[in-house]
Amino acid sequence: MRLFNKVAIIGTGLIGGSLGLFIKKHRLAQEVVGVSRHKKSLGLALKMKAIDRGSLSLDIIRGADLLILATPVETIVNLRKQILKIAGKGCLVTDTGSTKVNIVSFLEKTFPNYIGAHPLAGSEKCGIANASIGLFKNSLCILTPTKKTQKKALDKIKALWVKAGARVVLLSPKEHDRILSFTSHLPHSVAFSLIDSIPDKFLKFASGGLKDTTRIAASSPELWQGIFLTNKINLLESISLFEEGLNKLKFAIKNNDKKLLTHILTRAQKKRIILA
Amino acid sequence: MRLFNKVAIIGTGLIGGSLGLFIKKHRLAQEVVGVSRHKKSLGLALKMKAIDRGSLSLDIIRGADLLILATPVETIVNLRKQILKIAGKGCLVTDTGSTKVNIVSFLEKTFPNYIGAHPLAGSEKCGIANASIGLFKNSLCILTPTKKTQKKALDKIKALWVKAGARVVLLSPKEHDRILSFTSHLPHSVAFSLIDSIPDKFLKFASGGLKDTTRIAASSPELWQGIFLTNKINLLESISLFEEGLNKLKFAIKNNDKKLLTHILTRAQKKRIILA
Repeated sequence: MRLFNKVAIIGTGLIGGSLGLFIKKHRLAQEVVGVSRHKKSLGLALKMKAIDRGSLSLDIIRGADLLILATPVETIVNLRKQILKIAGKGCLVTDTGSTKVNIVSFLEKTFPNYIGAHPLAGSEKCGIANASIGLFKNSLCILTPTKKTQKKALDKIKALWVKAGARVVLLSPKEHDRILSFTSHLPHSVAFSLIDSIPDKFLKFASGGLKDTTRIAASSPELWQGIFLTNKINLLESISLFEEGLNKLKFAIKNNDKKLLTHILTRAQKKRIILA
Repeated sequence: MRLFNKVAIIGTGLIGGSLGLFIKKHRLAQEVVGVSRHKKSLGLALKMKAIDRGSLSLDIIRGADLLILATPVETIVNLRKQILKIAGKGCLVTDTGSTKVNIVSFLEKTFPNYIGAHPLAGSEKCGIANASIGLFKNSLCILTPTKKTQKKALDKIKALWVKAGARVVLLSPKEHDRILSFTSHLPHSVAFSLIDSIPDKFLKFASGGLKDTTRIAASSPELWQGIFLTNKINLLESISLFEEGLNKLKFAIKNNDKKLLTHILTRAQKKRIILA
């Protein structure tokens, strides 16, 4: 079933590329075009059939009826006016950024027909080379409508994600950023700091535990500095709560308080087992 | 090739059970007996052919020429005198505990023929049900000889681990505990504290990143309180170093210092990529 005529994906990386693969495979659009800063990425996107045509220039997006902004969060905000000039006001616009308050406030001022989205399907392995048609299957996609969001925009983007196999949840941008500061941005902060604190000469003794705990520290620094800075207040608060917990653990260890230590570890273990 | 007549495994869990499976499969001993606190665990160990005979009582270890202590670290230390009485002084003794200074100092005083070992093959999934014959293949096994260690004991235990497929590394107990405080005990502390700090109502938004980062927080509280307390000084120091790093990250975020933030994240990413 065709949902769109021309889909333009700006940022043909892991998320943008996977969306292109899916849209093309299911013929949800007549044409999918892609924009990237990297010629190599466009070449691979073409070869993988994630896009029909690619360009380093935004001009290629002209005439699109769906615009997917899938670049790092800062780039999304920086490019918005340039994009508006070429794409026009009628175009349905969505993004896939990992923080929402900042982006949504900018983009809904710029595009009358905008709805924010955040598919929780990212990985430390970014780039088109890691894109796959099934990336969003059984994953969660958070849409962040506001008072300004048009019902038609929400319905169409929701339909797209449901077709991609995602469970769609609606949250306000504020709720989204608060929740994700705990479930994603805090773990990333901790993972980056954790690997950074291991002396180089000890790395060869790394076991599966250290590897898993720090897997997401292999994520793109460019992407993550933008995420951290656009969700700064929530993130600093979630880090504080984590530090409080770590302080209690240290207290129990310092004081050989076996009872308190077992209590903390048991509570944490129970919570972790729920996730599995 | 038979290395031993009677092997006794005290603690037929993940590690002890996997060793039993391996020793029996390769006929490295005439008989393998197991001791556990749990009847169910012994039953499963028998069914899985990890042991030939099992008992809730230590009496079954009488006459063993190899004794493998594979219980949590505290239990190893607490049981040592009782074990000595039954097993006698001639028996070759090893353990698989995750901290070594404390255990080695007790056990080498008790058993004239002792060598400490730590196979880095543990998992949050403990218990005999998760044991497997290939658990140690391509893993690292650290042996911790001291001045008191007899060469023959070292050679025999080394041969056992090499046969199990492990790469064997020799470290002093002190070096072992310092290194593991960073590569294993710190990540566990961080994982327990991290999952503990996530509000319950947000858990349903957990993505792969949070799950991986906290996987090891599903580990046994009983096992880990013992590990933390027997490596207390090193662990508190490694937590301090981690906190220093986290403070720098917070500083960069608080001050919108994009350059410093990118610098920290890039350094961490590079280090993590080495591990992969």
